[in-house]
Amino acid sequence: MGGIDSELIKDGWFRELSEKSFPGQGLALKVKKVLHHSKSEFQDILVFESATYGNVLVLDGIVQATERDEFAYQEMITHIAMFAHNHPRRVLVIGGGDGGVLREVIKHNCVETATLVEIDKTVINLALKYLPGMACAFGDSKVQVKLQDGFEFLRAAAISPDQKYDIIITDSSDPEGPAEAFFQKEYFELLHNALSEDGIVIAQASENVWLNLDYIRNLIDSAASVFPVAKYCYTTVPTYTSGQLGLVVCAKNPRANVHRAIRKPTAEEQSQLRYYNEQIHSAAFVLPTWAHHKIYKEE
Amino acid sequence: MGGIDSELIKDGWFRELSEKSFPGQGLALKVKKVLHHSKSEFQDILVFESATYGNVLVLDGIVQATERDEFAYQEMITHIAMFAHNHPRRVLVIGGGDGGVLREVIKHNCVETATLVEIDKTVINLALKYLPGMACAFGDSKVQVKLQDGFEFLRAAAISPDQKYDIIITDSSDPEGPAEAFFQKEYFELLHNALSEDGIVIAQASENVWLNLDYIRNLIDSAASVFPVAKYCYTTVPTYTSGQLGLVVCAKNPRANVHRAIRKPTAEEQSQLRYYNEQIHSAAFVLPTWAHHKIYKEE
Repeated sequence: MGGIDSELIKDGWFRELSEKSFPGQGLALKVKKVLHHSKSEFQDILVFESATYGNVLVLDGIVQATERDEFAYQEMITHIAMFAHNHPRRVLVIGGGDGGVLREVIKHNCVETATLVEIDKTVINLALKYLPGMACAFGDSKVQVKLQDGFEFLRAAAISPDQKYDIIITDSSDPEGPAEAFFQKEYFELLHNALSEDGIVIAQASENVWLNLDYIRNLIDSAASVFPVAKYCYTTVPTYTSGQLGLVVCAKNPRANVHRAIRKPTAEEQSQLRYYNEQIHSAAFVLPTWAHHKIYKEE
Repeated sequence: MGGIDSELIKDGWFRELSEKSFPGQGLALKVKKVLHHSKSEFQDILVFESATYGNVLVLDGIVQATERDEFAYQEMITHIAMFAHNHPRRVLVIGGGDGGVLREVIKHNCVETATLVEIDKTVINLALKYLPGMACAFGDSKVQVKLQDGFEFLRAAAISPDQKYDIIITDSSDPEGPAEAFFQKEYFELLHNALSEDGIVIAQASENVWLNLDYIRNLIDSAASVFPVAKYCYTTVPTYTSGQLGLVVCAKNPRANVHRAIRKPTAEEQSQLRYYNEQIHSAAFVLPTWAHHKIYKEE
């Protein structure tokens, strides 16, 4: 095993363990070769080649993406928002330095600009080097990149009405690291302010129904105190602990029906999608009974 | 840590690793105390108290059930079949010695008899001792238990027309151990023969779309060579590797629509269900695009 040692790797296996986020359970991936390990200004960054999941990006000990299954997350966080909107032209991505969400966003021909705000340039550079299949959209003419904290970007921006965003995608890491502010009410207020009237925001919820339902309920409550529509859905990812990750979807228009693909994928669009389809868009919002009751308070 | 040592436990963590079934990835659960470890005539059986998932039953190194999340599997394998049938009276459970499926079956008032055929009495005895919340139905007057190999039971039974089963649930362990025969065409033929005309069979598929799609496609092909309806669906379980487990549902009647709850749960029935509901019944059949194409051959 080459590269720089990481204490997360022992006996040739990477272990994802977090006593705070998922006590008593863990996930292991067999390591072929460490490709990169460093501490940037913002976080601990590990990239390794795994035995069976391709290259893997790990931030602060938590798996962000593997080459084999990344499309499940990138497609769902992107297309649930994009296909729930009638005509998304201006798209903002907060975080997402690996480029995977950008790659999905520009599959929509209606998109005119896609702006990525990423705090950590190291993530972008490492994705370009080690995750080229994800980082393939950085050169696209519709794409702009701002190296800045997403929260500060939204706070500083005096966004004129014609520059508001139709879709904002918060592809942050989990709330314990630099992304902490992305999970609080003030953030939802900033998002609301930056969105056009029919705008939709989608954010990774950092949890799933199996791990911390109280947290999800609070997150939905925060979102619902700002947005008239705030719903939880999920995608399945075998290399995230518990095998799934939640997403929070909010709309500024109270009549928005985010559960459905109100714009259908064209045959050309669908041919580029490996995970998302119209049926799975709606199925992703269907929850087990106990989780539904808890999140929506017996709604 | 008390009890008998198991090589599956190291440094206080149980590891589920299988180079054959899921190479290069693994799942870990923190162990509080080993409650039981033995090799029965049929398999290696481990029961431990985990730090955060309650008591855990492990057969041949593979997690079968934990007290915290077992309802996700037990409810879905049972109620998808039961609510897709108009009036299930006679139910057969093959395997399922932990009793979890039986517990779910007898929640349906229409059931007259529920027969469990389990090869390994040790599993039943250990469930009664360590998983009492699962094993609570063994004393029910509708329940009969036969200590026998399920395959042999079906082969030997000259089942008269009025004794055929409305529902058969194959709650086996994975195909590498004593359950190997449950994943082959001959088994589906025996099931077909034992079912009433509107009968439905559901079987755990041992795999999920993330691990071995070729296997699932072959399994659906085998099932479809015997049954006019053979579909794949899944449930989410955080303590199964990849976080989900597939189920194969077959019907003898070509017009059967197993995707839907054709019988709706009554309010009383629904109040006893923590995972299953009418919406999740249908959502469980919705697959990511690439998996749908692979399993159903671009159907």
